[in-house]
Amino acid sequence: MFNQNEKDAIYKVIENRRDVRSFLSKPIPESVLQRILEAGHHGPSVGFMQPWNFIIITSDKIKERLAWATDKERRALAIHYENERQQKFLNLKIEGIKEAPITICVTCDPTRGGSHVLGRNSIPETDVLSTACAIQNMWLASCAEGLAMGWVSFYKKNDVRDILDIPPHIDPIALMSLGYTDQYPDKPILESSGWEKRRALENLIYYNRWDNQTKE
Amino acid sequence: MFNQNEKDAIYKVIENRRDVRSFLSKPIPESVLQRILEAGHHGPSVGFMQPWNFIIITSDKIKERLAWATDKERRALAIHYENERQQKFLNLKIEGIKEAPITICVTCDPTRGGSHVLGRNSIPETDVLSTACAIQNMWLASCAEGLAMGWVSFYKKNDVRDILDIPPHIDPIALMSLGYTDQYPDKPILESSGWEKRRALENLIYYNRWDNQTKE
Repeated sequence: MFNQNEKDAIYKVIENRRDVRSFLSKPIPESVLQRILEAGHHGPSVGFMQPWNFIIITSDKIKERLAWATDKERRALAIHYENERQQKFLNLKIEGIKEAPITICVTCDPTRGGSHVLGRNSIPETDVLSTACAIQNMWLASCAEGLAMGWVSFYKKNDVRDILDIPPHIDPIALMSLGYTDQYPDKPILESSGWEKRRALENLIYYNRWDNQTKE
Repeated sequence: MFNQNEKDAIYKVIENRRDVRSFLSKPIPESVLQRILEAGHHGPSVGFMQPWNFIIITSDKIKERLAWATDKERRALAIHYENERQQKFLNLKIEGIKEAPITICVTCDPTRGGSHVLGRNSIPETDVLSTACAIQNMWLASCAEGLAMGWVSFYKKNDVRDILDIPPHIDPIALMSLGYTDQYPDKPILESSGWEKRRALENLIYYNRWDNQTKE
């Protein structure tokens, strides 16, 4: 059971966790990193398949190559935005791979657990959903540890496979940058920058069927 | 910043959250449900698209139909397991939809935020990954509130769409059963039942490239 102080701490971390793009070079203690990885490994997984691996990237050379892959993709995507929206997009800082002392590539192995993973037979993508839940655990743990984390999703998966020698059947779900920061945002960066607004929760809740906002 | 007690509470909930299939009929206070939904809505989302909706299912008639859809799928999947594994599978309790006072269908709308959601252009499934992160927040909040949650993934999505009037382009990611329980497991049910084992974290960690277990 959880007392009120414990509950408050849990809601505090859920509300304060932010996606961060600016990092200090200050190193991350090994024990802290291990606790964050343990938090990930305690994520739920369909059929208890635990499909994740964690590639800890500390090599400057590899970080350079990952930053190249993400910047290439950023420039390619900028072409799809027009006029002011394009300039606004190009002004956003979308990754901090070279600054962050560690980037963790979180992968999903769809073959783990054999051919008939309980529950995954119905909805195959539950393996990547499980991996996302593990990432959310890591993100909350990082915030609790006073660390900043950023989920980089600008890349072609095959570029990341090439750079990290990842086999073709393994899915590089995310590049998570991790480090200390002196710019921990109090709101989502895309909210403060005027890119998107937070929606009202009440408009997202339905009762007993789609689009029914009347409680029965 | 988080003090040691707060950190302990956060790791405690991450380690104690379980997937539960047995529920009491005791009702869930509305304020508790709202906090759990707020926790979900504070999940991270690619391009801040907030692609989720929450359908709160309390109608017995609708629960009956969902339970029918999951049981049909359970029996269909049993055919893929043979001999003792089949009997073991059929003995597992895989859902508690009719018992739980509330089931929440969490959906993902891939059209939300328009045609070019920042970050989702590179990896389209980041919308469902975001929704999974929201679900993990809800799961942790439920555990903190002394409630049990179970992720039911045995269904054909079109059955759930039919039952809940969900449009064809909306993805019914999960049915999350929610309620109090007197059987909160201290280990994953699939671990206690001998179905699967927890893997050693150290075997899942690589350094700088796939399959390299030597720290550099």
